[in-house]
Amino acid sequence: MKEKFTVHDQLLTDCFRLGQLQACHVLLHRNAAVPWFILVPETGFQDLLDLPAEERDRVVAEAAALSAFVKSSLGYPKVNFAAIGNLVPQLHLHVVGRKPGDACWPAPVWGNLTESVDYTSTQVTDIRRALETILALRS
Amino acid sequence: MKEKFTVHDQLLTDCFRLGQLQACHVLLHRNAAVPWFILVPETGFQDLLDLPAEERDRVVAEAAALSAFVKSSLGYPKVNFAAIGNLVPQLHLHVVGRKPGDACWPAPVWGNLTESVDYTSTQVTDIRRALETILALRS
Repeated sequence: MKEKFTVHDQLLTDCFRLGQLQACHVLLHRNAAVPWFILVPETGFQDLLDLPAEERDRVVAEAAALSAFVKSSLGYPKVNFAAIGNLVPQLHLHVVGRKPGDACWPAPVWGNLTESVDYTSTQVTDIRRALETILALRS
Repeated sequence: MKEKFTVHDQLLTDCFRLGQLQACHVLLHRNAAVPWFILVPETGFQDLLDLPAEERDRVVAEAAALSAFVKSSLGYPKVNFAAIGNLVPQLHLHVVGRKPGDACWPAPVWGNLTESVDYTSTQVTDIRRALETILALRS
């Protein structure tokens, strides 16, 4: 019997869980200073580039769909994309909307986003609903 | 006539150019503190996740091949992978070998790698030759 997959506690502490796509759970970082999404594929691999090619392509395709949402629906011209995982070993991909003049431009967000802004619950619900409509996100 | 593609000056300043794969130019960051490779696909797109799916998959496959080299040939257990580009607009992908205790572990290298170590020309040649053999890198 396949063991039930659970998202790492640290990610659940840092983020709102929005739902899931075909391959990945979709989280939203609680810091609203920039739109910072995190995708967690259901895999035991810890590095994106270690995934078998087909699975890797599927996961990156979901990141691309999320990136398109960040650009077209949230109005950010640039997306930073990274798989780091030096602190949280569970594979997770960062998809971060960026624009000149944002809270830590041009530095990458990791370790540099000192400004902290809260989402309202309405904002989180709006983002979740938009992803349900546009990307067929399910709960 | 297709204009000749040139790698961005800043990347050529920061890196050794090792050669090219089918889709990407392969650079090696001059700071030898960690094995830090940079892939530059020949495209006008600035964000990895904006590439058409087929091209995106081809580029990520080359990053995966390079990552396998970093792990199996250079002996690094972890690879950080990112497409940021907030400073240098030309699309480039970071493939960085990491291990606990390295020069800036567990911080990401961007903005945190204060230690600087030089490669010898022999070391660069050895890496280039290994990539020519293992990944069919050409000049």
